[in-house]
Amino acid sequence: MNETKLMSTDVIEQGLDAVEEYLLSVVNSDVEVLRDASAHILTSGGKRIRPQMSLLAYLAAGGQDLDEVLPIASAVEMVHTATLVHDDINDHSLTRRGKATVHSVWGRTFALLTGDYLFTKVYELMAPYGPEYNIVMANACSRLVEGETLQAAAAKAGTIDRETYKRIISLKTASLFEASARMGAQLATDDADLIDNLATYAYNLGLTFQIVDDILDIVGDPDEMGKPVGTDMLQGRGVLAVNNGLSQNDGDGTSPAITNTLSQESVDPIMQMMSSLRESGAVEIARMQAEEMGRRAKATLENVPPSAARTELEDLVDTVLTRQK
Amino acid sequence: MNETKLMSTDVIEQGLDAVEEYLLSVVNSDVEVLRDASAHILTSGGKRIRPQMSLLAYLAAGGQDLDEVLPIASAVEMVHTATLVHDDINDHSLTRRGKATVHSVWGRTFALLTGDYLFTKVYELMAPYGPEYNIVMANACSRLVEGETLQAAAAKAGTIDRETYKRIISLKTASLFEASARMGAQLATDDADLIDNLATYAYNLGLTFQIVDDILDIVGDPDEMGKPVGTDMLQGRGVLAVNNGLSQNDGDGTSPAITNTLSQESVDPIMQMMSSLRESGAVEIARMQAEEMGRRAKATLENVPPSAARTELEDLVDTVLTRQK
Repeated sequence: MNETKLMSTDVIEQGLDAVEEYLLSVVNSDVEVLRDASAHILTSGGKRIRPQMSLLAYLAAGGQDLDEVLPIASAVEMVHTATLVHDDINDHSLTRRGKATVHSVWGRTFALLTGDYLFTKVYELMAPYGPEYNIVMANACSRLVEGETLQAAAAKAGTIDRETYKRIISLKTASLFEASARMGAQLATDDADLIDNLATYAYNLGLTFQIVDDILDIVGDPDEMGKPVGTDMLQGRGVLAVNNGLSQNDGDGTSPAITNTLSQESVDPIMQMMSSLRESGAVEIARMQAEEMGRRAKATLENVPPSAARTELEDLVDTVLTRQK
Repeated sequence: MNETKLMSTDVIEQGLDAVEEYLLSVVNSDVEVLRDASAHILTSGGKRIRPQMSLLAYLAAGGQDLDEVLPIASAVEMVHTATLVHDDINDHSLTRRGKATVHSVWGRTFALLTGDYLFTKVYELMAPYGPEYNIVMANACSRLVEGETLQAAAAKAGTIDRETYKRIISLKTASLFEASARMGAQLATDDADLIDNLATYAYNLGLTFQIVDDILDIVGDPDEMGKPVGTDMLQGRGVLAVNNGLSQNDGDGTSPAITNTLSQESVDPIMQMMSSLRESGAVEIARMQAEEMGRRAKATLENVPPSAARTELEDLVDTVLTRQK
């Protein structure tokens, strides 16, 4: 089993390397700024966890030739990248993964257009596939934007409740994870149950991933993160939401809203709140919730035939839960 | 012939009414701000010339049931609408078609997300169609963003030459016109030549339309236009480009660049330049070029079988050339 697993890991690493090449080859616009800004953000690193969903789901569903799934694995990463470019405009973020953001280098106008461009390239990548792929992808894209908007609305209102937090992370993160795995699996099999199980796994892993991400915004090391810690807090989202959204009185449905009355300029109170949140146990509660979502992800895998890829999907849950950046 | 034509015009008007309803029904997000902001911009009027391209090309290619082409006719208008929302952010425009722009009502963050949302809804509308439609649409979307970017780059550089102007209007306007007609025709016929002729017609009409639009930015009546005249000039594009891009020494390939050294604050010099452009004959040169593109559009129609729809397409060239807003 170990040998198979190692072999499969090599396969995935090769697949991810191929995704990197593929991504750069796609943004080959004649328009210099689009090519340069797209390459800048696409070579800024990133965990590439969405392409991993596509590659591993494809293999776990019996797929034999990773080249077949490359365009889709690249497309899902590119959707994510497009939203990062637009998010960074809205959040006024100057760095992302330790590199300057697109808008801080090229300005807001070109950043907005670069995000649009990446999105149209996703569409171009997906266009040759049939409706059964494009409907899944289009739906995930639409949900993603809805999730981002709900988050911005909650930040603006300065209030968020548990249900809204769950809805936000479902829409903005878990939906694209789900679509990534679903499309990968669809390429490999017609078995609808198998496809659904892999998609559900990825959905739950997406929830796990986002909660951990929100926790790391509070407790992470800025040097390891490659971005300032507390950005989400500054935007009135993140662990404020985690804290409330995942509080221990789960199930009563009457969780009161926490009001964030901090202005975006008041960094010192934010640092104080971060400190108090660290001490309040909110982070621990969120971590428990992440672990529960991780368990659900693993449980779904029990309905997937054993394979090296399935083992990797299992291990990925632990990787996501223990990541420090 | 007249009776048929009137009948067809009624059909088109009904088709366009159906597009209006369809557009609103599509932006039915649970997320309030996306629903409201999308409805706001979609009900701001607009010429709906791109849906007309789809509807008329469908009929001219022998299509019998306009309901069949509604989603595509709506999708092409929605692509255009998405770019308007993002353009207005980049141009700091406060009014559009006599109504407040999305970002002036909801702010920049939500305007950016509304543009993204409209684009994902386009993708959802198109997803059920096969690759032969999605490849056309995706390509047009990608070109549109490239055209907008080239235009922004030229405005930033303060310089634009004739070839760049042609490339910009081809990418940002004519490509989507072409795709609108191509997809409409594809729904009605398998005749590749007929499809190509209708697409080429629309491409040339798109060029005509954009040149006239740039002229109206200089000579139009702001009350009729529903937006401030000179906006394009202020952004370093528009008739500056028309003037140079379409100057009379067509064909020598050595047209010198005009440098726009005006700051965005210096409105008085802009008014002076508008006045001098009006008097310089540049507008007349641009008009001649628009008329030439219009002739090309009509010439392409000679290869399309006569029908009431073909007559409407011919008449549309004159409508575009004589519009005052």
